[in-house]
Formats: sequence, structure tokens, C-alpha cells
Amino acid sequence: MNLSEMIYLDHNATTPVAQIVSHKIPSFLEGWGNPSSIHWCGREPKNWIRQARQNLATALSVSPLEIIFNSGGSEGNSTIILGVFDLFRKTKNHYLCSEVEHPSVIQTFRYLETLGARVDYIPVNRQGALDIDFYEKHLSEDTALVSIMMGNNETGTIFPIQELAVKAHQAGALFHSDCVQALGKIPLDLKKLDIDYATFSAHKFYSLKGTGALYVKKMAPFQKSIFGGGQERGRRGGTENTLGIAAFGIMIPELVQTNEKAQQMAELRNHLETRLLNEISGVQVTAAEQPRLPNTSSLVLKNIDGETLLMSLDLKGFAVSTGAACSSGNPEPSPVLLAMGLSREEAQSSLRLSLGWSTTREQVDQFIETLKAVVVRLRNLGGETEQKELSR
Amino acid sequence: MNLSEMIYLDHNATTPVAQIVSHKIPSFLEGWGNPSSIHWCGREPKNWIRQARQNLATALSVSPLEIIFNSGGSEGNSTIILGVFDLFRKTKNHYLCSEVEHPSVIQTFRYLETLGARVDYIPVNRQGALDIDFYEKHLSEDTALVSIMMGNNETGTIFPIQELAVKAHQAGALFHSDCVQALGKIPLDLKKLDIDYATFSAHKFYSLKGTGALYVKKMAPFQKSIFGGGQERGRRGGTENTLGIAAFGIMIPELVQTNEKAQQMAELRNHLETRLLNEISGVQVTAAEQPRLPNTSSLVLKNIDGETLLMSLDLKGFAVSTGAACSSGNPEPSPVLLAMGLSREEAQSSLRLSLGWSTTREQVDQFIETLKAVVVRLRNLGGETEQKELSR
Repeated sequence: MNLSEMIYLDHNATTPVAQIVSHKIPSFLEGWGNPSSIHWCGREPKNWIRQARQNLATALSVSPLEIIFNSGGSEGNSTIILGVFDLFRKTKNHYLCSEVEHPSVIQTFRYLETLGARVDYIPVNRQGALDIDFYEKHLSEDTALVSIMMGNNETGTIFPIQELAVKAHQAGALFHSDCVQALGKIPLDLKKLDIDYATFSAHKFYSLKGTGALYVKKMAPFQKSIFGGGQERGRRGGTENTLGIAAFGIMIPELVQTNEKAQQMAELRNHLETRLLNEISGVQVTAAEQPRLPNTSSLVLKNIDGETLLMSLDLKGFAVSTGAACSSGNPEPSPVLLAMGLSREEAQSSLRLSLGWSTTREQVDQFIETLKAVVVRLRNLGGETEQKELSR
Repeated sequence: MNLSEMIYLDHNATTPVAQIVSHKIPSFLEGWGNPSSIHWCGREPKNWIRQARQNLATALSVSPLEIIFNSGGSEGNSTIILGVFDLFRKTKNHYLCSEVEHPSVIQTFRYLETLGARVDYIPVNRQGALDIDFYEKHLSEDTALVSIMMGNNETGTIFPIQELAVKAHQAGALFHSDCVQALGKIPLDLKKLDIDYATFSAHKFYSLKGTGALYVKKMAPFQKSIFGGGQERGRRGGTENTLGIAAFGIMIPELVQTNEKAQQMAELRNHLETRLLNEISGVQVTAAEQPRLPNTSSLVLKNIDGETLLMSLDLKGFAVSTGAACSSGNPEPSPVLLAMGLSREEAQSSLRLSLGWSTTREQVDQFIETLKAVVVRLRNLGGETEQKELSR
């Protein structure tokens, strides 16, 4: 089995590097100069960064001055939360985020709690919808920052960011959204959303790992987390990751295809879910009735151990996930699914499928046939084990 | 003039990507999976990271568990300083660093001062030597951390890190060294140096921008700055920059050539300085009597504006620098040179030349001939301007 026969259904973990990106990499490697150098060596890389910044700003309907390139989503989320805490330390001490945020958000807030901050984690229901009453009740004059993701990495649920931001602003709080999973899956107009901060990651959008971007609204308070030279207008020190930024810059104009690709992925995802629900017993789709990212499907398969299923599918050349990649190998069930009220057993029987721009109907159908066979086999094995246990 | 005719003498700003690295990049691009994924897609990149970590640990005589990959030198320096401050906030409040540290160190300490920390900046003399008396007098029980670079990026001066660390430890302080400029220029045995933290950057050693590493001694206090998944054993969140780390991993075994390359660069640098001192009037070599990185030469050329000189040399295909690349375009004279007691005029007449592993004697001689001609022309122009001004 070689790589081209493999079927990758784990695009929320990371995406393959687009050909239009990888084809340009050799020429970007030629421009290895320091973009801050004022001699010939720095000019080309400096232009690539300028172009990437312009591309991203245009795609998001914001100003290039509002974009800060960095090393990725976790840096972006950590920087905003730690930075707002430092800036408001003496005036405000309350924070709000959802219970299903990415670990880079949740863990940063847990750390702020050790420093004395009050943090409320907004619950979600079984469908993954936010408890808006809870949110409204806990928003106060003391709230410095609200951080709620655009789309969830595990279940794909989309939160009503625009409305949530309006409420935060009415209470005098700043609003940040982790948009890492949203880029390339749903249209993003940051101007219309009117949020203060947003986080992006290049490797979730067919570019390289190690590059990301922060949107920081003009005049929004900002405290950098990496000091150094005057890069990124003094907002993020360190020689720029020219290759990563230039590669991201090549991919960004492709965002104009988002609507079309979203429709294509949604059709395939719906086809996948319909067939699985019809053809495999004991399947539930998590958050099926919520607005969801068009590519994501989170399933619970009764009497199946998710990890075993993942490994069986892996042996047959399919890449899927039981939860977020960043917690893979962690035997604990997904905190996101538990927060939604799934039992530990259900969470441990879960499977995350996430399609990409290049996923085909053929691949999906091939996956369904394999999954059906694997599930039957695992359930039979499970049954045998149970019977063996009973006959002891 | 095409790129191959250009002569690059600015290796302290950044280095060209080594051929052994760039040749491997297409294959690394094939392994675009998330290293945290437990399916087929994650295995190869995970192995590359493991191998790079092992290579770096071996090269530095430390354990792989003591290496944390990150986005570069500025992140590393910021993380250690901010982290120690957070951890010791309630017990210690004093910090020491040299006056000639990289901006990522100086600026982070300036920020700590706004949060209430006491920071003393150890002066250097005209030769760039640290004021050891000052250092000893200011070290106290209240000192949480000392941060002193291994080799200076502008003048190349090397500080006696081993002795300085012993003194810090005797006072109960932790010791960090920014080793970004030292890698590949002088041998580094961290076990022998017995420091607590060290910072490295891949792009200063013929690899890619956007990747670096922190050495954190086993049991040394550590507070991460980027939260997220469990990457880097929970010490640095965010999907790893696989390409950058794998590329760095390929270059690291070449560190065995350090001694040989250092000797080669020192011979060329000495040849360069000897010829310049003999053949151009009014040239001073800054810190000439100090132990220096073998590749670095910081010059003052009387009656020459450094920026104008840089641009004249640029037009002829030579890449040099007036100071650190990260402050290029900044009209202020180098704070490092001012800290050494050079006048503003001297600092503005300075030129930094930094050789690399591939610099040849032919290139150096070609540079000298060009520099001679340019200096004569600029001085004549300056003279004419002066005469014009006098005749007004």
C-alpha cells in the first residue's frame, strides 16, 4: 500500500500541502535572506511577507496593519489571553470561554486562574449549543475578555460569534475568536463580525506547519508575548518564518473558493452520514442538528472502542481520528464530548471524520464500505470476548 | 549581476540554507501529517522530530528530554525570562543581564521592569568585556535569573559563561545564555558549561527560519509561554513545525565540523582585518583584543556613514550590515556599540562583517578591493561636500 492509495479523512488535524504551495517552495528557498536586511538579500523575502499580509487582509476584509504573523494557532490563542490578562490586571479580573475551546485556550485560562483570575466556562448542551443564558448572566463590567471559537475542531459546531461579540461589547468586554478550524470551511468577514481578535493557522489550510496569523483590530489593546527586534511593527519579535509566511500567502487567494468547496464538502459529509446511519446500526452523529463546519462529522459507534477502530482503519490505509490530534495517545476520553454530556463510554466510542477540499465521493464510499466491515468484525470480536467472559 | 555573483558577508543576520538541507525538503514535504496523529500520517514526521531532538542533544552533550523545539531565538529568550519572572514573582525580584544582549532579552527585561522587577544591566568596556565587579556586586539572594549571551551578534565578543554561571549559582540564581550566535562558530558543551537554560535558532545555522530550540536543564524551573496540546512533553503547545525541525535535524550532525570551520573562518577574518588595517586609513576593529566569534568583524571607518557604505556595497553585490538585522532601517546607532563606549559618530561609521562556513578567501579579497575603492570614493565625496559647505 503506498501513500497515493491512502485515504485521509483527518483534515481537522492537519491538511496536505497544496501543490500550488509545494511547487513554489524551491523558489522561496532561494530567497533565504533575512527580511529585515536592507541589502539585496532581504528584499525578496520582505516582499513575500508584504504580499501574504495583503492577501490575508483582503480575504478577511481587514487592513494589512491588523495582521500579525506568528508560529500558529496555539501561539495566537496564548498571546491574546495572556496579553489581555497582563494589560487588565489592575482593572478587570473576569474571563469567559466555552467549555469546548481548544486546549490552547482552556489551558491558558486554567493558568490565569492560578494567577488569580476568575474564569467561567460556558456550558454547551448535548447538541453542542452554547448556554446563552449562562453567558449573559456571567458577562459583567469585570469581564476583560471573552474567547469563543468560530467552529469546533472535534464536532464542527459553529457558534454565533457575531451575536456573542455584540453582547460582550455591550458589557465592555473584548472578544476573541479562535478561527483556526473555520478558515477555508466557512466564509469569514472579520469586519462584519466586528470582533477584536482572531486566530489562524496555516497548516489547517493546505500550507506549512509553524506559521499562523493573528488579527488584532486597530486600537484593540495588545501585549506581545515574544519580544525582540521591530518585526511585525514591534508586535512579534523574531526573524520571520519567511518560507511559512510566503507559502501561506500563496494559498490565501484560494479562499475565494470557500463557498464552493464548503458546499462540495457538505454534500459529501451528508452523504457519508446518511449512508452510515442507514447501513450501520448503533451510529449517532454528534451535534447533527447544530450549524456545523461542512467537513466535520463526529460519530458515536455503539459497542466500539474508538482507538481500536482507528487502528483497524489505519491498517487499511484510512486516516481518521478519535478526537483532537493534539491529545492523541491520551487515554482520557475527549473533554469536548464529555462537556456536551456524552458518557465516558460514548466518548470512547467516538470517531471524528474531517473531509478536505480534495476529498472525493469515491474515497468516501470506499471508506464507508471499509468502516462497515471493520465495525462488524470488531463487534463480533467484542461479542466473543463478552461471551468468553460470561462463560468463565 | 545574478545571485551567484553576489557575496554574502552577513551570516550573523541569517545564513543560506545548506544544500544537504534543501535537498531533503521535498521529501519532508511529503510527510505533511500531524506528528501527534497516531495513524500512518503522523509516524514519519514524529520520527523526524525525535531524530532531530536526539541529534541536537548529542551535539550539545545533554539529554533529549532537555530539548524543547520552538519558533526561534526570540521566542526562546522571551519564554525563559517571562517564565522565570512568573515562577519567582512571590520570592525573588532581581534580574541581571549584560548591556549588549539581543533585543529579545533587553526588551523582555524592560517589560519586566514595568511589572515591578528590578533589573541591572551589566556594563561592558570599550573592548566589550563585562564588568565582573559590577556583576558580583549586584548578584544577591534576590536574583532570580542571570541572562548573558554566549557570543555577541554585532561585535562577536565571547563572554566567560562557565565562570559567570558558577557565580550565579553560588548566589542561588538561575543562569540563561542566548547561544544563537554561537552554534556552529564555537564548540558548545552544555553539560560542561552547567547553565540552566540556553537558546538556539535554526536559521543562524544553515537551516530554516521559524525554528529554534531551548535547552532547559533537568529539574530547572520552567513556565511555558505557549499553551496547547501535550506537544514537547507539555512544555510548548502547538503543532510542531515539522519541516523546520526536520531540516534543522539534518544540519545538526554537521556541528562536528565546528572546530575546523571555526579555524577556517578565523583565518579569513584575520586576513580580512589585517588587510583592511594595512590598506585603508582610519579603520578600527571593535573589540579586537577580546575573545571573539571567529567569523565576526565589527569595524569603525572614520568619516564614513555606515548606511551609505552598506548601500554602496549592496549595489556592487556585497551583503554586509551596519548592526543587527533586526534593527535595520532604524536610524538610531547600534545600542551595543554605544554601550561599549563608542561615540554616536563612531557607531554610525560602523560596519559588521560576518563570514560563513562557505566564505572563500577569493570572496574576502574581492570584498577588500571593493571596500577600498568605495571608501576612497565616499571619503572624497564627503570631502567635496565639506568643502562645498565651507565655501558657502
